[in-house]
Amino acid sequence: MTSDRTVDLGFARLDADRAVRTGTPEVVFAAGKTPAETVACLAGLLAAGVRPAWATRVDDTTAAAIRERWPEAVVGGQARCAVVGPLPDPVGEVLVLTAGTSDGPVAAEVVATLAACGVGARRVDDVGVAGIHRVLAVVPDLAAADAVVVVAGMDGALPSVVAGLTDRLVVAVPTSVGYGAAFEGLAALLTMLTACAPGVLVVNIDNGFGAGVAAARIVRSSSGGPPAQR
Amino acid sequence: MTSDRTVDLGFARLDADRAVRTGTPEVVFAAGKTPAETVACLAGLLAAGVRPAWATRVDDTTAAAIRERWPEAVVGGQARCAVVGPLPDPVGEVLVLTAGTSDGPVAAEVVATLAACGVGARRVDDVGVAGIHRVLAVVPDLAAADAVVVVAGMDGALPSVVAGLTDRLVVAVPTSVGYGAAFEGLAALLTMLTACAPGVLVVNIDNGFGAGVAAARIVRSSSGGPPAQR
Amino acid sequence: MTSDRTVDLGFARLDADRAVRTGTPEVVFAAGKTPAETVACLAGLLAAGVRPAWATRVDDTTAAAIRERWPEAVVGGQARCAVVGPLPDPVGEVLVLTAGTSDGPVAAEVVATLAACGVGARRVDDVGVAGIHRVLAVVPDLAAADAVVVVAGMDGALPSVVAGLTDRLVVAVPTSVGYGAAFEGLAALLTMLTACAPGVLVVNIDNGFGAGVAAARIVRSSSGGPPAQR
Amino acid sequence: MTSDRTVDLGFARLDADRAVRTGTPEVVFAAGKTPAETVACLAGLLAAGVRPAWATRVDDTTAAAIRERWPEAVVGGQARCAVVGPLPDPVGEVLVLTAGTSDGPVAAEVVATLAACGVGARRVDDVGVAGIHRVLAVVPDLAAADAVVVVAGMDGALPSVVAGLTDRLVVAVPTSVGYGAAFEGLAALLTMLTACAPGVLVVNIDNGFGAGVAAARIVRSSSGGPPAQR
Amino acid sequence: MTSDRTVDLGFARLDADRAVRTGTPEVVFAAGKTPAETVACLAGLLAAGVRPAWATRVDDTTAAAIRERWPEAVVGGQARCAVVGPLPDPVGEVLVLTAGTSDGPVAAEVVATLAACGVGARRVDDVGVAGIHRVLAVVPDLAAADAVVVVAGMDGALPSVVAGLTDRLVVAVPTSVGYGAAFEGLAALLTMLTACAPGVLVVNIDNGFGAGVAAARIVRSSSGGPPAQR
Amino acid sequence: MTSDRTVDLGFARLDADRAVRTGTPEVVFAAGKTPAETVACLAGLLAAGVRPAWATRVDDTTAAAIRERWPEAVVGGQARCAVVGPLPDPVGEVLVLTAGTSDGPVAAEVVATLAACGVGARRVDDVGVAGIHRVLAVVPDLAAADAVVVVAGMDGALPSVVAGLTDRLVVAVPTSVGYGAAFEGLAALLTMLTACAPGVLVVNIDNGFGAGVAAARIVRSSSGGPPAQR
Amino acid sequence: MTSDRTVDLGFARLDADRAVRTGTPEVVFAAGKTPAETVACLAGLLAAGVRPAWATRVDDTTAAAIRERWPEAVVGGQARCAVVGPLPDPVGEVLVLTAGTSDGPVAAEVVATLAACGVGARRVDDVGVAGIHRVLAVVPDLAAADAVVVVAGMDGALPSVVAGLTDRLVVAVPTSVGYGAAFEGLAALLTMLTACAPGVLVVNIDNGFGAGVAAARIVRSSSGGPPAQR
Amino acid sequence: MTSDRTVDLGFARLDADRAVRTGTPEVVFAAGKTPAETVACLAGLLAAGVRPAWATRVDDTTAAAIRERWPEAVVGGQARCAVVGPLPDPVGEVLVLTAGTSDGPVAAEVVATLAACGVGARRVDDVGVAGIHRVLAVVPDLAAADAVVVVAGMDGALPSVVAGLTDRLVVAVPTSVGYGAAFEGLAALLTMLTACAPGVLVVNIDNGFGAGVAAARIVRSSSGGPPAQR
Repeated sequence: MTSDRTVDLGFARLDADRAVRTGTPEVVFAAGKTPAETVACLAGLLAAGVRPAWATRVDDTTAAAIRERWPEAVVGGQARCAVVGPLPDPVGEVLVLTAGTSDGPVAAEVVATLAACGVGARRVDDVGVAGIHRVLAVVPDLAAADAVVVVAGMDGALPSVVAGLTDRLVVAVPTSVGYGAAFEGLAALLTMLTACAPGVLVVNIDNGFGAGVAAARIVRSSSGGPPAQR
Repeated sequence: MTSDRTVDLGFARLDADRAVRTGTPEVVFAAGKTPAETVACLAGLLAAGVRPAWATRVDDTTAAAIRERWPEAVVGGQARCAVVGPLPDPVGEVLVLTAGTSDGPVAAEVVATLAACGVGARRVDDVGVAGIHRVLAVVPDLAAADAVVVVAGMDGALPSVVAGLTDRLVVAVPTSVGYGAAFEGLAALLTMLTACAPGVLVVNIDNGFGAGVAAARIVRSSSGGPPAQR
Repeated sequence: MTSDRTVDLGFARLDADRAVRTGTPEVVFAAGKTPAETVACLAGLLAAGVRPAWATRVDDTTAAAIRERWPEAVVGGQARCAVVGPLPDPVGEVLVLTAGTSDGPVAAEVVATLAACGVGARRVDDVGVAGIHRVLAVVPDLAAADAVVVVAGMDGALPSVVAGLTDRLVVAVPTSVGYGAAFEGLAALLTMLTACAPGVLVVNIDNGFGAGVAAARIVRSSSGGPPAQR
Repeated sequence: MTSDRTVDLGFARLDADRAVRTGTPEVVFAAGKTPAETVACLAGLLAAGVRPAWATRVDDTTAAAIRERWPEAVVGGQARCAVVGPLPDPVGEVLVLTAGTSDGPVAAEVVATLAACGVGARRVDDVGVAGIHRVLAVVPDLAAADAVVVVAGMDGALPSVVAGLTDRLVVAVPTSVGYGAAFEGLAALLTMLTACAPGVLVVNIDNGFGAGVAAARIVRSSSGGPPAQR
Repeated sequence: MTSDRTVDLGFARLDADRAVRTGTPEVVFAAGKTPAETVACLAGLLAAGVRPAWATRVDDTTAAAIRERWPEAVVGGQARCAVVGPLPDPVGEVLVLTAGTSDGPVAAEVVATLAACGVGARRVDDVGVAGIHRVLAVVPDLAAADAVVVVAGMDGALPSVVAGLTDRLVVAVPTSVGYGAAFEGLAALLTMLTACAPGVLVVNIDNGFGAGVAAARIVRSSSGGPPAQR
Repeated sequence: MTSDRTVDLGFARLDADRAVRTGTPEVVFAAGKTPAETVACLAGLLAAGVRPAWATRVDDTTAAAIRERWPEAVVGGQARCAVVGPLPDPVGEVLVLTAGTSDGPVAAEVVATLAACGVGARRVDDVGVAGIHRVLAVVPDLAAADAVVVVAGMDGALPSVVAGLTDRLVVAVPTSVGYGAAFEGLAALLTMLTACAPGVLVVNIDNGFGAGVAAARIVRSSSGGPPAQR
Repeated sequence: MTSDRTVDLGFARLDADRAVRTGTPEVVFAAGKTPAETVACLAGLLAAGVRPAWATRVDDTTAAAIRERWPEAVVGGQARCAVVGPLPDPVGEVLVLTAGTSDGPVAAEVVATLAACGVGARRVDDVGVAGIHRVLAVVPDLAAADAVVVVAGMDGALPSVVAGLTDRLVVAVPTSVGYGAAFEGLAALLTMLTACAPGVLVVNIDNGFGAGVAAARIVRSSSGGPPAQR
Repeated sequence: MTSDRTVDLGFARLDADRAVRTGTPEVVFAAGKTPAETVACLAGLLAAGVRPAWATRVDDTTAAAIRERWPEAVVGGQARCAVVGPLPDPVGEVLVLTAGTSDGPVAAEVVATLAACGVGARRVDDVGVAGIHRVLAVVPDLAAADAVVVVAGMDGALPSVVAGLTDRLVVAVPTSVGYGAAFEGLAALLTMLTACAPGVLVVNIDNGFGAGVAAARIVRSSSGGPPAQR
């Protein structure tokens, strides 16, 4: 296990070689960190050669701090991400579906993650099963994609239907959209875990980042190339 | 409130006029009762003029005791019900759908309940959303029905899709079919409660009886007639 | 399946023919949308011929935006709904009961939904079972109604009592009223699902919209007419 | 704190003076003990002067062992209790109501406990709220009782109604009767804890023993006498 | 059932004879009501002859509105109650114990409720089991009390210990004090429901009002007098 | 959507073209079916040209019935699967790791599923993180695999460690191994969903079948070939 | 990390140097293993020089298989453990308390584990807080112990009291003793996690093994000696 | 039991001799107390001779009140503690590990608690298992420590790995860091309770104080000295 450089910032120990080992660099989880800490982590990763360096769950204050330090960074927006450094050229295409408009921020995090991983994305919103013809309309898109990410809250039923219409791997992201018995995404999570169609793989509630990393790994695996990031 | 005859058996107080008040007689819940108690309750209801008298959750021992007392009774089968006395002529038609074959016993309880309530039923099994064309194939059946009962375990996604394809009321019955994160029907229950299509109404897990009574009430309401049972 | 016009707004894909298929148009769920998005969705529905166009969970900012665009709209109030366009003439009557005054906003959403669906409503508040004579006093109202919606928080016991007094279908709406072991409506939800009286059908916690749509469907079914909305 | 004799059996340390301190002796919880251990505990309590000595949750094997040792003991039955030694003369009267026949075993444990505590009981079964006239029929019994114990499973709604009809203290016992969303008594427990009528006090699911001890304490408190048992 | 006057305010239907039936008048639950609604309910109860009229969960705005209307009212404080009208002369004495200082507001609601019910109270705070001598020090107070209310959060262990030291009825109130696995009072609630000492009766989390009403009922029952309030 | 042949057996409607659409045929879930029903489903699939036809969750009785009908079938064993018809030649290799020996049956279901899908497998058991050198020892196996399936119960910590050591996609399967706070696999499920390393995708508890199908899809995707099964 | 010999049995990979690293050898968890597998694991550990070799959760069949292979083994009993090889001479003393007799099997597992780890134990049973004088009677035992293990089900209140009476570390073991709201040990677990006295450390429900290993580690740490086992 | 001085402040009863009995003084839990109450408690403890007096969960307002009264106090910071009076000289060393930077505040509470107890600490942050080499790098630190505290949120997997690498006692602190299925620390809590490595002892979510007290007790036990605080 030779790929194990650690950058010690005192309050954080950056895993500088994670991309060498896993194809994806350590990414800064900004929730629970001060803006200064997030900036320091990004700077540490950049100093260690990670390109791009990247943070998720970036609030407005932290976004401002990042923009001040790196004016060229791509920061904020619906995806609440910050990316410092050039994006890789995109390879392949992941189809990102949402069941409803309110699932948008999570889908945006998926797309931003794919971009940072060097993978292309095509996003189609508001494909809920209550209007099943909207799902059937994306069957050609399914066939054209390298992998599919389905983002859904409330009943979380969309991945079950999609997985019965494609031979692509379906990564399902439950969201906390809904109220009452949606229990902050628990209902959608359980639905996806018990999907009657096999080939559905599930990530944590609202975890667009994890879904993006996984989908990128699938695309890179099928395109046969080496991991994009060092 | 004049319709309130009570038949006091000591261990039970039968609500002999419930059909007068609610359109459905008191039905004996056999689980947790001895065979002798269930038989006594049925006899008490019959003596009070209830036709048919009727029990649910009948196990094999109780079924045998009922058959011995009333050889003409319709007892047991997949529905685990016992009906003593003539069935009313059926009115209307309820479409009963199951997502999978394993949901059969609950669907059978729905159908048996409808029969005892004097309502017709048409059952189509194994219409899971993983093969969405099977759902689309029943669209004409939906249009022909007075109401729809959807029985589903695991992800419980079927009612969301069906309710987007019909203007009939959809009664959703979650079942305890599945394992792991299905949590004995909890996953399907939450899915149905948070269905993205409105017009879905939910009963307890595995409660085919309650769904049947409700569907019968809808049919009788739309057929304009008086409640069938006194 | 010919009734499937989709209006593509980019961030949303409106299901313009949902009323043709289900008797109720797609309704905008404003929670999680920006005011501009909600206005755009309403405008899209109106452009596609949906009358009235309609949104739920409208907060004050969104209400103001809607009012500015359509000064004639019925917006806000206890029901937090917005309706743009003429209301249909009401058919039939649904009895809407609340167990307590605090359940009022959910009951208001039921009534507003019925109005938008073209169904009449009669609302009686504060009929809790702790003063059972208040429940008995509405028995005549039950007999006069086409369907009954019962809204209750805390112990959620009211539907069990009501369903034993009527042959009408009872739609039960648990609310998040209460504290501690009420667990944000979970206690009432479980009570209603396990109601000892059959004929109780349950919707999600605080889901006055879903209860209203279902009750409207029952009334229209029993009045024999075609769905009101196209 | 002088009332603290302990009888050390090695595997158990009997609290021989508990009746002096609390009015109720230590009672043997037979579940999880071997028949020999239960017999030894009862013998130890008798040797220390406790009259009657008493065990709950007695299965058939343990019941047989107790009968063999003390042929005069009152053992078993629906209540699954064993009482060795003379019962005290009963004082006062507790009204014990069940919502359904299946709640009988728990009610029997309440009655047996009251008898062992020297308190009278009157039991009325199957007073469910789905036939509310059955509840209204016991209003005179409520007025005549010193305290009320209400035993109910499924929706657990009965205590809310009863507590609005009496100034007696209502002890509510949820039972594990029901299926699905009854969650082994959890639904009834939550209902009772959130009862909209004050004056409802709750014990553990299926805990007829605890309800009986508490009700006995209320009766003895109101009859002004000293605790019955030493 | 002749004691059933109802005062209809439109948004509320006051149960004016509840004290005749249950010994305690209808009390206004101010949470979820506007200040004007709470004031109207209090005025309605006063007009119907209820003395004192009374509200719980009164926030600062509502407290101000009540004070403005009835300057003589006792309003607010740690108990968040409002009482309009003369307090009855106190009878008997309830011992109110808290496990910690943070449980104070709930204990204050117990004491205020007892006062409104015409029952005396003695409060001893911060008697946690981690310093068991503090519990032993109140044994004489236990003997002098007519009933005991124990208020505890976190582990909720105090009622188990107290109930082993007294023959008085113990009403246990779990509080939402604590963090993490205290789960907003769930841990304390479960502890109290499974208390190894019998004679513990439990109310909802943070429900000082319910505990006070129940304790008052016990005291009045043992003092033999008629209910204080009409 | 032309690939939608349905074989109607009355009690089941087989989705004969699922492999054409999704790359995996409909697989019979034998739990909750009678042996005769499972045999009929397999026969129906074979008649429709599905090769191999295949069932999961096969108990001993069903296994015997299958063997009697198709003596050449591969039936039973730790994996509880039945496969009728020739296995495809295996492509690629999935590394299947278990955290402990007790996770074996689930891992066996993964391997059997991969075989039926025409994908190779390499299984290494008992690689728990309590002896981290055992995990480090499989790093070369990770590099050689096309995808990784990690099966773990109890704390479910293994996928977090593995995903930090490889750029392969990690499919995590929580198992119901463990007791107490393992809560039948819930602990492991939550651990895996919240894994601190991205690239972990989760299936239902004990769902070796779903993990196998997904892993096969990954391998086939990366090997560029068409789906194996028609 | 040089202490990492692995014994590969195919179905298991024994961590032969775990005692060198952690002071406790790998112990065989027999639940979910066949008798033959458990015997093979014990034999493998013995061959690798582990003394004693040791298994937990041994049922009767496995116990018989072990006795047949190693007639000198200490097998079975209340603790359900098997130990093959000489026990180390005991060092120090851990006080093991149970709240009730039914907690005995878990306490026996604690004591057996301590013996296998070479640590002395003193067990006092049935010290429940409902008779608080029984707890006070063990204060001298607390002072004499090197560490304390408290085993309790139901309300799980004992550790809170004990930890307020000693400066020893208190290891708390919740048990699944109890019913209803005990929720298989969940109530006791939450109580112990939220104990109002600091210095309470908690293990899994019914995990006598883990408590024993931890207590042994404390004793050995305070006795200054090296780990006993290699 | 002679060490039981109580300081009665009316709203609080301070346990002035707790350090004599348990080695740790009563510590003021400031959450839920007013600043004035916290100051009064600290003053009461100081007056009773407790050194240092100490509070946890101190917010900014309370911190200011303490600083005003005792300018020399150590107040606030990431640990949210206040310590008034001289710190004891530190004995021994506890290694405090965090899985991520966001776990910092809880780790700071551990370290502050250790300091107040007179025990040394060494803190290493951000040692998550996703970069397992970072864990392996602290093996020498483990060997040098008297005890280990591991603080982790999200998957909570770190204690399982650490406990397999050391013979020191591992105190595991789950934190509420994470989102979705982390369920405010529940996921990490369950992971730690079911850790596959024995010797892991668990405290409440975010309970750095309890972990610090326990670790201090271990160190003092192994250093053989008397408790530091009176």
